[in-house]
Amino acid sequence: MFSKPIAPNAELRPVEVRHCDEIFAVIDRNRPHIRRWMGWVDATKSVDDVKRWHATVLEQVAKNNGFHAAIWWRDNLVGMIGFHAFDWVNKKTSIGYWLDQNAQGHGLMTAATRAMTLHALADLKLHRVEIRCAPENHKSRAIPKRLGFTEEGRLREVEWLYDHFGDLVCYSLLENEIGKMEAGAFSASSRV
Amino acid sequence: MFSKPIAPNAELRPVEVRHCDEIFAVIDRNRPHIRRWMGWVDATKSVDDVKRWHATVLEQVAKNNGFHAAIWWRDNLVGMIGFHAFDWVNKKTSIGYWLDQNAQGHGLMTAATRAMTLHALADLKLHRVEIRCAPENHKSRAIPKRLGFTEEGRLREVEWLYDHFGDLVCYSLLENEIGKMEAGAFSASSRV
Amino acid sequence: MFSKPIAPNAELRPVEVRHCDEIFAVIDRNRPHIRRWMGWVDATKSVDDVKRWHATVLEQVAKNNGFHAAIWWRDNLVGMIGFHAFDWVNKKTSIGYWLDQNAQGHGLMTAATRAMTLHALADLKLHRVEIRCAPENHKSRAIPKRLGFTEEGRLREVEWLYDHFGDLVCYSLLENEIGKMEAGAFSASSRV
Amino acid sequence: MFSKPIAPNAELRPVEVRHCDEIFAVIDRNRPHIRRWMGWVDATKSVDDVKRWHATVLEQVAKNNGFHAAIWWRDNLVGMIGFHAFDWVNKKTSIGYWLDQNAQGHGLMTAATRAMTLHALADLKLHRVEIRCAPENHKSRAIPKRLGFTEEGRLREVEWLYDHFGDLVCYSLLENEIGKMEAGAFSASSRV
Amino acid sequence: MFSKPIAPNAELRPVEVRHCDEIFAVIDRNRPHIRRWMGWVDATKSVDDVKRWHATVLEQVAKNNGFHAAIWWRDNLVGMIGFHAFDWVNKKTSIGYWLDQNAQGHGLMTAATRAMTLHALADLKLHRVEIRCAPENHKSRAIPKRLGFTEEGRLREVEWLYDHFGDLVCYSLLENEIGKMEAGAFSASSRV
Amino acid sequence: MFSKPIAPNAELRPVEVRHCDEIFAVIDRNRPHIRRWMGWVDATKSVDDVKRWHATVLEQVAKNNGFHAAIWWRDNLVGMIGFHAFDWVNKKTSIGYWLDQNAQGHGLMTAATRAMTLHALADLKLHRVEIRCAPENHKSRAIPKRLGFTEEGRLREVEWLYDHFGDLVCYSLLENEIGKMEAGAFSASSRV
Repeated sequence: MFSKPIAPNAELRPVEVRHCDEIFAVIDRNRPHIRRWMGWVDATKSVDDVKRWHATVLEQVAKNNGFHAAIWWRDNLVGMIGFHAFDWVNKKTSIGYWLDQNAQGHGLMTAATRAMTLHALADLKLHRVEIRCAPENHKSRAIPKRLGFTEEGRLREVEWLYDHFGDLVCYSLLENEIGKMEAGAFSASSRV
Repeated sequence: MFSKPIAPNAELRPVEVRHCDEIFAVIDRNRPHIRRWMGWVDATKSVDDVKRWHATVLEQVAKNNGFHAAIWWRDNLVGMIGFHAFDWVNKKTSIGYWLDQNAQGHGLMTAATRAMTLHALADLKLHRVEIRCAPENHKSRAIPKRLGFTEEGRLREVEWLYDHFGDLVCYSLLENEIGKMEAGAFSASSRV
Repeated sequence: MFSKPIAPNAELRPVEVRHCDEIFAVIDRNRPHIRRWMGWVDATKSVDDVKRWHATVLEQVAKNNGFHAAIWWRDNLVGMIGFHAFDWVNKKTSIGYWLDQNAQGHGLMTAATRAMTLHALADLKLHRVEIRCAPENHKSRAIPKRLGFTEEGRLREVEWLYDHFGDLVCYSLLENEIGKMEAGAFSASSRV
Repeated sequence: MFSKPIAPNAELRPVEVRHCDEIFAVIDRNRPHIRRWMGWVDATKSVDDVKRWHATVLEQVAKNNGFHAAIWWRDNLVGMIGFHAFDWVNKKTSIGYWLDQNAQGHGLMTAATRAMTLHALADLKLHRVEIRCAPENHKSRAIPKRLGFTEEGRLREVEWLYDHFGDLVCYSLLENEIGKMEAGAFSASSRV
Repeated sequence: MFSKPIAPNAELRPVEVRHCDEIFAVIDRNRPHIRRWMGWVDATKSVDDVKRWHATVLEQVAKNNGFHAAIWWRDNLVGMIGFHAFDWVNKKTSIGYWLDQNAQGHGLMTAATRAMTLHALADLKLHRVEIRCAPENHKSRAIPKRLGFTEEGRLREVEWLYDHFGDLVCYSLLENEIGKMEAGAFSASSRV
Repeated sequence: MFSKPIAPNAELRPVEVRHCDEIFAVIDRNRPHIRRWMGWVDATKSVDDVKRWHATVLEQVAKNNGFHAAIWWRDNLVGMIGFHAFDWVNKKTSIGYWLDQNAQGHGLMTAATRAMTLHALADLKLHRVEIRCAPENHKSRAIPKRLGFTEEGRLREVEWLYDHFGDLVCYSLLENEIGKMEAGAFSASSRV
């Protein structure tokens, strides 16, 4: 029912239980692509696994502890973006995302990340948004860079990926740096 | 962040905890007006009471058991509309609403009710939407009538209102009657 | 242990877990008969299903939100009657029931319904008791009629019954109408 | 609503929330009398304390872990008797009770204890019922003795009573000893 | 990580989830031996059963309602000792234990019971520690006797053991009797 | 009852509810000292606040999600060290600590951190231990440095400290780097 336009033909929508079939289908199509960076792909074997994840997402909303949004493009669900948690004491959050391979190259994830970051800092009055990317995941790292995030360090072997531990590079944008993201939006918007 | 346009300058938005101040302010301004039909007004004495209600609304979402939406008009929160519960076994729900007196006469509630009913029957695949109004509340009763709902009966002394029990007239619209609402939308839209 | 006499050789008793075998046996014997009006019969496939239902009934008692009673006749469990929920704000409740086909025609359900309604209005100080019956279920509709309940309307397609939605006729008795039920008791008692 | 006759003009009834006022009144009248043997009396300062206790009693029922019954005599609530817990693995339980001083001397507690013990052993198929009494509480000890319970030992300083630890004498009756209780019933019934 | 030395080469350690494999192996080796006195042995069929038990043990700690400790001897887990529950109102607790047959005859369980009893009475300021043993379990009964506990009585058919109900003899030591246990420690320490 | 020796006259012990008075006393004495680096000090106004924290610590244990240990030195409680959480999927944890000003300069915290890190990597088979320190907190930063941890980056304004957001420098030690810590132990042990 609800939506947030982020680009021509593209919008974010709350994740509803009736979308779980569609979410599973996209994950299933993108297994090799997403699996390289995401530790949960192999354990997502059926729509029921998506429904169990969705139940935790609703719990998250009920506790005011973050939310997830589906990315819709040309009326298809093509990806997901979410706040892992809200730390109301230290006023910070972090963002995670993944995108259907067929929907890449149109600036969708940059637009989605900008919308979510802006919501966190401007609407929810949080102070810091963090994004972590694998060092070799250049497409993913391009997003925080393009939006003016600052690279802060590389956390070693911090994530288990099926058969090895992977590093993560940490980026952040602070409340008083929203302007940097807006500047980044210019160059990004030309891609949309 | 998310919204659903329902008329020029009017939209529905999910209820967030940061809106509780504004919700309380509207209720507080409209006490005599809303209190005549709503049993919970006197118990809503502070923003904290609204926050407690909001927590139950988030629980409702977490259990896939209905949701509430704020009505925003010209960038002000002017009312509330919600599904009391979803009965997934019998595929039915009921709708409740209230509106700031200053926002009345613009067809906002008719538009909001049409959007919510359509969402229940078309998106969520429910079979029946029910609305109950006090017999003397002519403005409220005009909404289901205008949208093609059928009057089914008068439930006697079914609601406690501070110092007396009030009757409620029961209206419903079924899945296969969406067309009636659309027809009603025409005459209504001329009012918006 | 506890009981409430309602007629010669007939009494109500709290539902205990040790009765679940017997409850299942009666339901199992009456499937075609009860199934026509009750949506839960097909899902009641074993004693374990009855035990799960019984657990929800105990929860209901723990929350002061209604209770169920078994109808015992000539030392056999022959039916069930219960309050679906107690609405302490609006001081109302509703009653549901079913009876073994072999025990029909002796006024048992009328006596049970009178006892439960009297308990709700006189002991628990509720204001309104509601009973809903399928329009074609003449035996069921005879009970509220005989007890002086008022017919208030017909709710359309409000209940899912395996392969179709059914209507329900709504009856109620108010606190100040207990006398009507007592009058009804006379003609009914002649049947016991 | 429900009851269990135990003697002329005397019956057990489930404890309901609407009885809490009356329960508190009896406790309040009997403070010095009950306090000598019961550790919880001083902490029972208001009807709200009784309601909190009653909530735990309902939880107990919901978990099939015992229940409490009020003793009614000549239409007054005069005492309480209850199973502290049901141990379904070892098939045993224990009974506690107290009685209004004005209702003593009529065999009420003996009759109540016999009914509860019989229910535990015959209806619930438990194997052992235990009763513990303070050594100096001769009236209380007379009850298990009269009903044929066996004295098993004296547990030292096992109970805190405001300013000292008290001993408890332990009695039990086993499943195959129901006959002893029935014999005891004779002499007791002459007292009723 | 943590431990409590109780004798040369012997110590108590908190039970951790990573020890569940080892606990199951010891139980599995000692089935005929332990089963004679413990009702839970047959239901302990796999490491998962031990993990479920361990979860209840952690719950117990979270509620400040007792704890269990593994007995380690020459770097092997050889037994278990635990407080079933803490009764903070009456300031009492009870102790249960079992030991690998290969580790018997070295005074380990006497040392462990002394350490636990001392902790309960001296550190936790409880007033009474209880131990219950089967009448025919002479090795088990020797422990409270050796530590100066007082025998209080014999509870009849109080425990279900697979195919019969067994009696239990009840022992206790009070706060002001710690000295008796210390005296007992002397003769015991000569055995270690 | 349990303990873990970490240096002469120094040991770690599980945090028990009976220590809350002592914990509060140490915090209260060290307010200005600890407050500079810890955000929770001002909210810790009484022993009850410590007890509430302790309840969350027990929950943490019950969920196998970390634990805290008190640092005892010359039989006084002088500090605290704990795992914030266990991430069993990615096999990592992080450590936090604080120390009474009077107990500083004896290598206690280095010894405690070594013991905890060793337990996480060697006993619990975790892969990564993280420590975060304020850039200006030179004493705190000296500990991971001394133990061979690697500095990975500086997270900007990631922590709220009463009136400003503070940065944190991130250190980690991996499973295969335990040797580095042992080497560090040499120079450290000379300080103890």
